[in-house]
Amino acid sequence: MKKIITISREFGAGGGEIGRKLSERLHYQYYDKEIILQAAAESNLDIYSLIEWDEKVPIQFAFSQSLFDFYNRPLSEKIFKAQSSVIRMIGEKGNCIIVGRNSNSILKEYEHSLHVFVHARFNWRLERMKERMKGMSEAKVAEQIKRIDKTRNSYCTYNTRHKFGCSKYYDLTLNSEKFGIERCVDIICEALEYV
Amino acid sequence: MKKIITISREFGAGGGEIGRKLSERLHYQYYDKEIILQAAAESNLDIYSLIEWDEKVPIQFAFSQSLFDFYNRPLSEKIFKAQSSVIRMIGEKGNCIIVGRNSNSILKEYEHSLHVFVHARFNWRLERMKERMKGMSEAKVAEQIKRIDKTRNSYCTYNTRHKFGCSKYYDLTLNSEKFGIERCVDIICEALEYV
Repeated sequence: MKKIITISREFGAGGGEIGRKLSERLHYQYYDKEIILQAAAESNLDIYSLIEWDEKVPIQFAFSQSLFDFYNRPLSEKIFKAQSSVIRMIGEKGNCIIVGRNSNSILKEYEHSLHVFVHARFNWRLERMKERMKGMSEAKVAEQIKRIDKTRNSYCTYNTRHKFGCSKYYDLTLNSEKFGIERCVDIICEALEYV
Repeated sequence: MKKIITISREFGAGGGEIGRKLSERLHYQYYDKEIILQAAAESNLDIYSLIEWDEKVPIQFAFSQSLFDFYNRPLSEKIFKAQSSVIRMIGEKGNCIIVGRNSNSILKEYEHSLHVFVHARFNWRLERMKERMKGMSEAKVAEQIKRIDKTRNSYCTYNTRHKFGCSKYYDLTLNSEKFGIERCVDIICEALEYV
């Protein structure tokens, strides 16, 4: 029976690392940034536009009164649709782990899927990312975390009308600070058994 | 090492049943309604008022503009404080499972604690509760679920300023429809190992 794991995550909480470790342990294919590249290849969209727009909403979004009140909706929708169809194609193949890009929402009706959200306290994520962003000041790392969290949040609300991190949209959510990365992998494997 | 499990839950999602099964498996003490009775005994409050107010917010709350704009705050606060101190006392003894009453928030700083939220789709909860509320019409059961969900939601927001069911306030959240009750118990036990 082929299974799908989607991992949504706060920046710095270790969602990507958990995904890669799961992929090694389960011998599942791991998909992250490459979804975008695949989407570009399959939709004749300019690859630089795609990278630029990945998990972002149009700049106007932040200042607009309404979700629909901005000029460049057609481009962002085109990109979201292209990504969504690549995500569905990957989901149909199964035995895969897909990180980010609202894949929990895109694949929510799929059988044998496990939708996971990984989060942690801001300060824990800050310490973790300082280690990985050597040479960047603490203030700069903190700013980066806040910016990316905000962007993912808006991207989620904009494309799915869901609240990012609300447990009802996931089968399992984990505090990676509490358990640590390895243990999160164990818990996900345990949860996957009966999916 | 003594541990604490708190279980917050949507009505009908099986949080209480999961708690009781965990209690049998782990030989931990299980606390639910009896917290209220204990709170009454220890605070000289009228026991009927306590039962009446359990997991509720003052009626005026729903109609008020502000969280503070209602008349009978003193009584509800007195009850919440009495319950909170009983919950902290139980937490200090350890090896316990506490269901509901914002115990995740009250015990959030405690070491070796695991804060769980259990949720499921409305229709699954409806089918489950119809089985348990024989003789009640489907419409009545549905109304009951909505009413209790709403009450718990307001009770949580009112007392903790937290959003009920938002993953950041729990270490682990589970979709009980996806896993089933027994499997939720397995996953919680797995997660508890390194707490």
